[in-house]
Amino acid sequence: MRLSAENITLFTTENPLLMDCGSSLAPVSVTFETYGELNPEGTNAILICHALTGSAHAADDGSGPENARINRNPNGPGWWGNAIGKGRAFDPGKYFIISSNILGSCYGTTGPASTNEKTGGPYRMDFPQMTVRDMVRVENALLRRLGVNQLVTAAGGSLGGMQALEWAVMYPEMVQSIIPIATVARHTAWGIGLNEVARLAIMNDPAWEKGNYTEQPVQGLALARMAAMISYRTASSYEARFGRQQIADAEEIRARELFPATLPGFQIENYLRYQGQKLIKRFDANTYIYLTRAIDSHDLAENRAPLKDVLAAIKAQTLCIGISSDILYPPEEQRAITAAVPNGRYAEIKSVHGHDAFLIEYDQLNGLIGRFLAEI
Amino acid sequence: MRLSAENITLFTTENPLLMDCGSSLAPVSVTFETYGELNPEGTNAILICHALTGSAHAADDGSGPENARINRNPNGPGWWGNAIGKGRAFDPGKYFIISSNILGSCYGTTGPASTNEKTGGPYRMDFPQMTVRDMVRVENALLRRLGVNQLVTAAGGSLGGMQALEWAVMYPEMVQSIIPIATVARHTAWGIGLNEVARLAIMNDPAWEKGNYTEQPVQGLALARMAAMISYRTASSYEARFGRQQIADAEEIRARELFPATLPGFQIENYLRYQGQKLIKRFDANTYIYLTRAIDSHDLAENRAPLKDVLAAIKAQTLCIGISSDILYPPEEQRAITAAVPNGRYAEIKSVHGHDAFLIEYDQLNGLIGRFLAEI
Repeated sequence: MRLSAENITLFTTENPLLMDCGSSLAPVSVTFETYGELNPEGTNAILICHALTGSAHAADDGSGPENARINRNPNGPGWWGNAIGKGRAFDPGKYFIISSNILGSCYGTTGPASTNEKTGGPYRMDFPQMTVRDMVRVENALLRRLGVNQLVTAAGGSLGGMQALEWAVMYPEMVQSIIPIATVARHTAWGIGLNEVARLAIMNDPAWEKGNYTEQPVQGLALARMAAMISYRTASSYEARFGRQQIADAEEIRARELFPATLPGFQIENYLRYQGQKLIKRFDANTYIYLTRAIDSHDLAENRAPLKDVLAAIKAQTLCIGISSDILYPPEEQRAITAAVPNGRYAEIKSVHGHDAFLIEYDQLNGLIGRFLAEI
Repeated sequence: MRLSAENITLFTTENPLLMDCGSSLAPVSVTFETYGELNPEGTNAILICHALTGSAHAADDGSGPENARINRNPNGPGWWGNAIGKGRAFDPGKYFIISSNILGSCYGTTGPASTNEKTGGPYRMDFPQMTVRDMVRVENALLRRLGVNQLVTAAGGSLGGMQALEWAVMYPEMVQSIIPIATVARHTAWGIGLNEVARLAIMNDPAWEKGNYTEQPVQGLALARMAAMISYRTASSYEARFGRQQIADAEEIRARELFPATLPGFQIENYLRYQGQKLIKRFDANTYIYLTRAIDSHDLAENRAPLKDVLAAIKAQTLCIGISSDILYPPEEQRAITAAVPNGRYAEIKSVHGHDAFLIEYDQLNGLIGRFLAEI
């Protein structure tokens, strides 16, 4: 498939991004990839929206291992590679697929790790707090720049699903359909609590230095990831994979340099530490704080109308996909959205893997989305 | 009711506690309370086993607020006060009720915060790692000292339920029945993972100083508690109580001295920080590390036989109580225990409150346990 990866500036000092928090942000540049060709009418586009630690690199180039979650290397596997391709959910042979790094992230789009032109240094904690709506504003500007006149669909899981929902509310004329997966119409108290635990794990790390670190607060960021991983999978999946298996000898201990007091213990501990260790190599700590706050700010109802009225006004065909074992955003959340929107249908991925199943259960995902897109 | 609170030494240098880890520990003294009178045969006793941060002070003296979770003041309300009394689950008019602080805790029984007589200083991280079985050995020694010849029941929730299960395996002749509540036959990978997040929150705090703190690592211990609170309640209960309510002004922010980078935010964040702040005033950080490791070590099968055989050999009448919304130790765990023991019955507390419901839903708890004790 044709793959195009680019970075363009969408907002400038003369035309800044007006954010929900009241700030005017400029410049704002966006890193994005596209797969497939836009038709002359500009109406065969699909927007893929990534989750918390995702990037614009959604599609595989076919060279890498399957199921790779994230890869900054545009030649490596993409985070949703198994959902993009002929016979998969999103076919670049039929659609012009756009995947952009969200506002406030650290994979090429302007965010807390970017340079503040006013100071010449990185924004860090001076970055204005973006919302999901701000992310969608930037995505819309990107699509206009690319000549897209209508989206066949906006799709994503978790934070990606929050963006899809906002698309239907903010730019109803632009979206024929949306596919919010494993997400919520407004962020829950439980989810906010878990995000706060993750943020404090970072902020408690003295290396964080109120955001002014030169070296990442690696212990804190790794611990934040570990706490999040607890909610991304399920007790059953961890039990099946690790149970009470212990580390056979101290050589097996992962991330000992991060957590020197670590003892040989259980494989699940090792796995979580390893997940933490992986994230610190590819993600920025301040960005983690900002993006989790953006998630917490997500509320389709805020400054609009009661939630049921906001949902009732959504015109887009809506395929809500729940995951049977998701404890972070349980299927009841997506069923409730489905019931409240006029053109909603609900489908469920049956999985033991919990929230992360939208990055695992490709047979089901591709089938559900493929059938939906064929019908609308 | 008659309340007796005492501390006695059960193991001495001549007669040390032989622990699973191979250590001999002495002295071991235990703080305990009793309610009611032992009959001349020594057969009307009930042992109450507390959970992670509990103490020996289980019963109310009637002077304090209901539902108080923990109180170090023997004149204040007890952590299971609403389950102990006439017409409640455990009636001191009929039974001699013993509640002791577990081995390795910090409420009067020997643990990491106690003085190591060999050095004259506190044990800290030199304390031998105790197991749930070690806790039960100490409880058994206490009961022998008190002249108890048989327990009508051993009951407890969470870590308390793990002790109750071990009682039935280790001292089958001593227990007529057990009442394990919201617990597991062996600790799960998910539970271990969550405990490891809590431990690393403490160990990441530079004030922890490898356990050799003079001032508590307050940020780390508070964060550990916050992470645990995520699993003790449910998304539904937090949603009903807090939803997306925000802090109206900065004056409301709790625990700002612990977490100075905290912004005015959501009430759920404030609530969790407040829970963390409360724990640091009453609990020791090293003890938290040791007790969570003891929980992780819990496995009825270890060094014995396959789990199903260990459970099949339990002779005690067993009332397994599950909590419908418990995400930490879901009801399937207690149903599986019930199915595997010869004399098991299962009962469920219907609650939105999750794991903590055994400290909240007293009407159901008292009814279920009262009927069970009347029948056996």
